[in-house]
Amino acid sequence: MAPSVPHSSSVPLLTSEANEKYANVNWEELGFSLIPTDYMYMSKCKQGESFSEGEIVPYGDIPISPCAGILNYGQGLFEGLKAYRTEDGRITLFRPDQNAFRMQTGADRLCMTSPSSDQFVQAVKKTVLANKKWVPPPGKGSLYIRPLLIGTGAVLGIASAPEYTFLMYVSPVGNYHTASSGLNLIVDHTYRRAHTGGTGGVKSCTNYSPVVKPLFEAKSSGFSDILFLDAATGRNIEEVSTCNIFITKGNIVSTPPTSGTILPGITRKSISELARDIGYQVQERDVSVEELLEAEEVFCTGTAMVVKAVETVTFHDKKIKYRTGEEALSTKLHLMLTNIQMGIVEDKKSWMVEINGCDE
Amino acid sequence: MAPSVPHSSSVPLLTSEANEKYANVNWEELGFSLIPTDYMYMSKCKQGESFSEGEIVPYGDIPISPCAGILNYGQGLFEGLKAYRTEDGRITLFRPDQNAFRMQTGADRLCMTSPSSDQFVQAVKKTVLANKKWVPPPGKGSLYIRPLLIGTGAVLGIASAPEYTFLMYVSPVGNYHTASSGLNLIVDHTYRRAHTGGTGGVKSCTNYSPVVKPLFEAKSSGFSDILFLDAATGRNIEEVSTCNIFITKGNIVSTPPTSGTILPGITRKSISELARDIGYQVQERDVSVEELLEAEEVFCTGTAMVVKAVETVTFHDKKIKYRTGEEALSTKLHLMLTNIQMGIVEDKKSWMVEINGCDE
Repeated sequence: MAPSVPHSSSVPLLTSEANEKYANVNWEELGFSLIPTDYMYMSKCKQGESFSEGEIVPYGDIPISPCAGILNYGQGLFEGLKAYRTEDGRITLFRPDQNAFRMQTGADRLCMTSPSSDQFVQAVKKTVLANKKWVPPPGKGSLYIRPLLIGTGAVLGIASAPEYTFLMYVSPVGNYHTASSGLNLIVDHTYRRAHTGGTGGVKSCTNYSPVVKPLFEAKSSGFSDILFLDAATGRNIEEVSTCNIFITKGNIVSTPPTSGTILPGITRKSISELARDIGYQVQERDVSVEELLEAEEVFCTGTAMVVKAVETVTFHDKKIKYRTGEEALSTKLHLMLTNIQMGIVEDKKSWMVEINGCDE
Repeated sequence: MAPSVPHSSSVPLLTSEANEKYANVNWEELGFSLIPTDYMYMSKCKQGESFSEGEIVPYGDIPISPCAGILNYGQGLFEGLKAYRTEDGRITLFRPDQNAFRMQTGADRLCMTSPSSDQFVQAVKKTVLANKKWVPPPGKGSLYIRPLLIGTGAVLGIASAPEYTFLMYVSPVGNYHTASSGLNLIVDHTYRRAHTGGTGGVKSCTNYSPVVKPLFEAKSSGFSDILFLDAATGRNIEEVSTCNIFITKGNIVSTPPTSGTILPGITRKSISELARDIGYQVQERDVSVEELLEAEEVFCTGTAMVVKAVETVTFHDKKIKYRTGEEALSTKLHLMLTNIQMGIVEDKKSWMVEINGCDE
């Protein structure tokens, strides 16, 4: 039985019978907001020790010290990945080892102990299996998985917390952006996201709350999202609030390099590989605003949104329109990637990891 | 009796007899680490609403959604201030309205609702009164007060949390740094603390976990703390990991300006005023590394450390020694400020706020 009660979100939890294939969710109307599920994963580790095997527990509030590193000093990382239900009934993950690796890099930057890659991937599998009925039917969405690594030990002066918690919860999701055609971005002139020597290159929680205000302002002005320039010169494009950015011109696809101020996106990396596969030259290099304005096509990549065309970019008083739709490279790349993720075409790259049972 | 052994938050709250004057703490050996006390303050507020009066509750773990804004996106601010026990038996606070104001500025930057100044100050008073016996005897230390404002509502996509928690806990503390003479700082060449258009000018949790690694590395190399340069040029000094910095030459005292990348310290502001009072010219302006190396005296200010002389600064292969001790301006300013804080001299500036009762 799945006792699916304890939860804190304001969204009422949908209960369901045991052994049923699907939770009682309106799969046609999935967006990107929390639908609490039955279970989550928890594991704790003292500073200087290693994580041992964690456990699946009912989803719900966790007790935390008011003096915890995450509450006082922002010592926390998150990840985001998805589980898919294929037409032939399998449940699969997309490159979970890459998320495990990124969490390790981030943990080193924030002085935390991280789970091993194997522990990470096993935890993802267990969490998805425990919440199997929340994986949407094929084509209706995916199960978004949110691993957290947070400093939960009490610490008064600034230092690494004496205890870390590795936690994972899930939510069925549909599209991240509701815009059907393409994104309308605005280039920000006031705020910057990250600087060299900071934490912009890891998935630290500290990169995100500073973005909430500019993102809110952009959305209030009718834009879908915000494009940040580099903090050092203000001349090059870096990253959209929650995704990487690419521009195309002719046969060349360009994207800012992962040199510490942008997130090394797993979708970014995968899309680069797919673009090369179909004959494009992919350049990871500084991309100036001028080049952006002269591009033929612009698109964004991220776990939540996969690949999304940019329809317009607004820079000062200029509003540039880009190619979108059937002819766009982003449309082709989106299809190539989602076909792999959904099991519609053969996964020749061994990107997909199948979940068959708890202990595989 | 008060069995007040430092305990982790998972340990049940230790109770004590009513009316006793002091908790059972070894006041001679106070450092700057958490000694949990009896009570804390809690108040919650939904997005778009205002904080109402909070309540004093037993100190201990709080329940929080795994999907909370603070855990996932670092949506959190903290403050730090102190309560003092004077020789004549009063308990006082140092400029709590300034902390209230700074929390409001930070809440605006991180898109949170903040308590009003009056709510903030009343909450500080209530929290200190509830923990009155934990305020150290005169001259033995102070009661450090840690207000937090954190996004506790559940939010999956990046946005402001739908609920905020204003929380306050305390701990008796002694000296922040154990070095008796002065600090030995190293100028960092790899890491940067903050950038223009970021959150360096507010007391956001996001400024602190990125500093843990460079601070750990500096301490491992025998330094007391680390001095960060500006992210834009790497030529000017900005801030030590948890305090502001001043340099002196002749009659001129200089400190970096509060233009968004350094914390507008309350001790910084107060010390500037005291230095002016005794005839120094205080300049808030960019201070280059070259000027730092040629200074006669360098000192740091912060709530935790008050005023602390810098004995040496290491920059590449140079190690510069500065004036410290009885003749140093920092020694004089430290005495001037602590005399006001401890009620030893008259508070002509109306900086001290006396706590007489819950509802004053």
